[in-house]
Amino acid sequence: MRKTNLEEAIGRKYPEWVTLVVAADESGRPNAMPAGWVTFTSIDPVMLAVSVGFERYTHGLLKQSDEFVVTYPSAEQKEDVYYCGNHSGADVDKFSETSLKKEEPARVSVPLVQNSVVCFECEKRGELVTGDHTIFAGEIVAAHVAEEDLEKIYTVKGWHEKGYAGFQTIEEMARGR
Amino acid sequence: MRKTNLEEAIGRKYPEWVTLVVAADESGRPNAMPAGWVTFTSIDPVMLAVSVGFERYTHGLLKQSDEFVVTYPSAEQKEDVYYCGNHSGADVDKFSETSLKKEEPARVSVPLVQNSVVCFECEKRGELVTGDHTIFAGEIVAAHVAEEDLEKIYTVKGWHEKGYAGFQTIEEMARGR
Repeated sequence: MRKTNLEEAIGRKYPEWVTLVVAADESGRPNAMPAGWVTFTSIDPVMLAVSVGFERYTHGLLKQSDEFVVTYPSAEQKEDVYYCGNHSGADVDKFSETSLKKEEPARVSVPLVQNSVVCFECEKRGELVTGDHTIFAGEIVAAHVAEEDLEKIYTVKGWHEKGYAGFQTIEEMARGR
Repeated sequence: MRKTNLEEAIGRKYPEWVTLVVAADESGRPNAMPAGWVTFTSIDPVMLAVSVGFERYTHGLLKQSDEFVVTYPSAEQKEDVYYCGNHSGADVDKFSETSLKKEEPARVSVPLVQNSVVCFECEKRGELVTGDHTIFAGEIVAAHVAEEDLEKIYTVKGWHEKGYAGFQTIEEMARGR
C-alpha cells in the first residue's frame, strides 16, 4: 500500500449510495436532503443511521423532531436529487420546486417520496456528535417499495463537479469504467 | 409506494459496500471482520463510523482498543472476505488462515491489509449504542491506497446464500441485471 493524502484515498470509496432524508419543521412542512452518509445499524430492531452536517437545514429539523424518512431515489429522480443538494430548505420548498411528490406515510408524520426505490419511516432513537456532523439513529417503523424494482443511483468520484451526471446507476458506472 | 415488510424493503438497498474492520486484542493480535455498515461521518476532521453487533468478536476489540483500520477489499480478496465473515477471531487467526497479508501502518498499532483498494487508519472518537449494534466513530489519521485503482466489491441481494459469489464488482453486477 502507498501512504497518501485523504483526498486521494477518499476518492477510492466511490461509488457511494445516495439517499434522500425527509424531515419536517414544526409546522409540518417537509424538506428532502440528499445524504450519502447513511448506514444500517441494527438487526433487532431494524435501525438506520444518518450523518448530517451541523450547518445543514436538515440538521435543525432532525434535532427538533423525532421522525424522519429515508428514501433511496430512483434513476428518474437524478435531477431532483441534484436540485435538493444545491438548494436549502431554509430558502425553498423543494416539493414545490421539483417533481418530487409527497405520499402518505403509515406511521410517522413525515411524507414518503413517490417513485422512490424504497422508503423507510424512522423514529429517532439516538444521536452522536462526530466532528462536524451528527449521526442520527432511527428505528425503522414502516417500509414501502416501488412496484417495479427501480434502479438506484450512486455518486461517482468527482461527482461534485459533474452536475446530476454525478449520480449514476450500476449500468452507467459499468459503461464508464 | 406499496407498504411492505422489512425483509422485502431491505432487499432493495443492495448493492451495499463491504469493508474489512481490522482491530487487535490486548496482546496485539489483529483480526479482520467484514462490515457493510460503514459510513463516512465528518469532513473536518475526516471521520468514519462502523456499526458492529454486540455478539461479534470485533465488538469486544473495539470496546477495549482506541485504534482500528478500515479497508475496502479488492475483488481478488473475495474468498478471504467470505472466510472472515464465516469464522470468528475468537477461534482462528484469520491472517494465518487466509491469504490476507498484514502491512505496516503509519500511525496506529493495527496493521493494514496488503492489496486492499484503500486502507484508513482510525483513532476511536465516540460510540453510540443502536439496538443490537454499537456505532464506533473514528478519526482517520492516515490513509493508504493500492498503486492500481483496484475493483471494489459489494454485497448483492441474497448474498448470505451465495457464498463468496455474493460479493460482486460493479461490472459483475451490471452483467447480472
